Amino acid sequence: MEAKLRDELFQQAKEWVLQAGATIRRKIDDPLNIDTKSNPNDLVTTMDKDTEAFFAKKIRDAYPSHLILSEEGFGDDLSTMDGTIWIIDPIDGTMNFVHQKRNFAISIGIYHDGIGEIGLIYNVMDDVLYSAQRTQGAFKNEVEIPKLDPNVPLHESILSFNHFWLCENRLVHEKEMQRLVKTVRGTRTYGSAALEFAYTAEGIVDGYLTMSLAPWDIAAGMVIINEVGGVTTTADGNPVNMLTKNSIFTCNPCVQQEILEDFLIKGKK
Amino acid sequence: MEAKLRDELFQQAKEWVLQAGATIRRKIDDPLNIDTKSNPNDLVTTMDKDTEAFFAKKIRDAYPSHLILSEEGFGDDLSTMDGTIWIIDPIDGTMNFVHQKRNFAISIGIYHDGIGEIGLIYNVMDDVLYSAQRTQGAFKNEVEIPKLDPNVPLHESILSFNHFWLCENRLVHEKEMQRLVKTVRGTRTYGSAALEFAYTAEGIVDGYLTMSLAPWDIAAGMVIINEVGGVTTTADGNPVNMLTKNSIFTCNPCVQQEILEDFLIKGKK
Repeated sequence: MEAKLRDELFQQAKEWVLQAGATIRRKIDDPLNIDTKSNPNDLVTTMDKDTEAFFAKKIRDAYPSHLILSEEGFGDDLSTMDGTIWIIDPIDGTMNFVHQKRNFAISIGIYHDGIGEIGLIYNVMDDVLYSAQRTQGAFKNEVEIPKLDPNVPLHESILSFNHFWLCENRLVHEKEMQRLVKTVRGTRTYGSAALEFAYTAEGIVDGYLTMSLAPWDIAAGMVIINEVGGVTTTADGNPVNMLTKNSIFTCNPCVQQEILEDFLIKGKK
Repeated sequence: MEAKLRDELFQQAKEWVLQAGATIRRKIDDPLNIDTKSNPNDLVTTMDKDTEAFFAKKIRDAYPSHLILSEEGFGDDLSTMDGTIWIIDPIDGTMNFVHQKRNFAISIGIYHDGIGEIGLIYNVMDDVLYSAQRTQGAFKNEVEIPKLDPNVPLHESILSFNHFWLCENRLVHEKEMQRLVKTVRGTRTYGSAALEFAYTAEGIVDGYLTMSLAPWDIAAGMVIINEVGGVTTTADGNPVNMLTKNSIFTCNPCVQQEILEDFLIKGKK
């Protein structure tokens, strides 16, 4: 995508994200209308749907040739990554949104012919926007995020992943993951994939691991983390497919090989 | 303790906490001097020591009869809870302080003859002060925190605890804890006991469980959580001893009995 066009798109997307965030903040204490989706803990609210509808309308009006890949049903049914695609999670971390009224994000990635061009992750309640354009660096609000520290030994790293990795699971022998917990300096769980990508990009955690994410959970994060020198693969080290669900491992490259080889691939079922 | 005296003490402690917090914020980007204590991941910095020294000097000058129980060596060697005791963690969540430069807190509990009278937990970087005086309610900055929701079913609860509970450990059979993970709605790990007490008091998590904490990690939190109707015991349901390390389970009373009986006591080694 041409730089000037990308920058215009970036400014427009950013404006809409901030606008949608302001609406969510204004309504944060309104009564919630909560449904469940794939399982009783997979929550969705009217706010998720209204926010996605807001973006879908704006995009279809302004950019009728663009496509939308999104969580709550306002998107297109895509079989390829051709063209310009907005990949949208209106509220990433809906459980946090419902139970905490904070620690959730709007996540928008814009991809062109399969290449991530723009990433925006907006921590709505903290009013913190993580953003990136391909080859232009990543930013936290207006401040450029430094490149990841090239010297983080595994035993001094902090990893973010949920507790299911340590229970019997379909992907990895849990004993290997328990060994990983005892190898690293610390572990955290925040409950929003988009924010956990952003935290990895900031270097406040050194990696984030998750069992099954949809494209809208990761599209923005992958663009942002690329810009600070981070890497993203599936949990067994393969490229991520943006048209399906994936397991995900995004991290500082310092710790990538060791975690992949000694724990994830070694423990793979 | 008499109410008027307690309130004076509260105002004084609050002023010092805010002052110490402002100093930490001013120095947050200074180079760190990091040591380790009991193990390579038990970190301590000059900032921990300087902050504790600041409180110790202020207290000893203003209240020479008061005692201090604290983390970094400026306190007294206590064998009883008699008298007025300041229980201080200058930086709770030192790993977060070092790696994240946020998500840590100053924690001060003031106990009189064993009874928690005052609790202050200051999220320094967010400038959010959780506070309570016994029988006077708990506050987040100037806003009173509502009493805990009396209707949180276990399967809709969010618990905060670290990943070690799911690895082989000395306290509880890890399989029972893995079953707990699959029973509740969600799990989180934030890395600061004081903040996790505060989050439980706010109801953004419904319980916090931890294997071994010193009095300074919990003294303020216990006062604050009492004021919203929360309960704190050891992980096997016994009273907490403020002169030793304890395992800790603090929670909304809705979920207390079920988690204790069906998981922690059932799984106890």
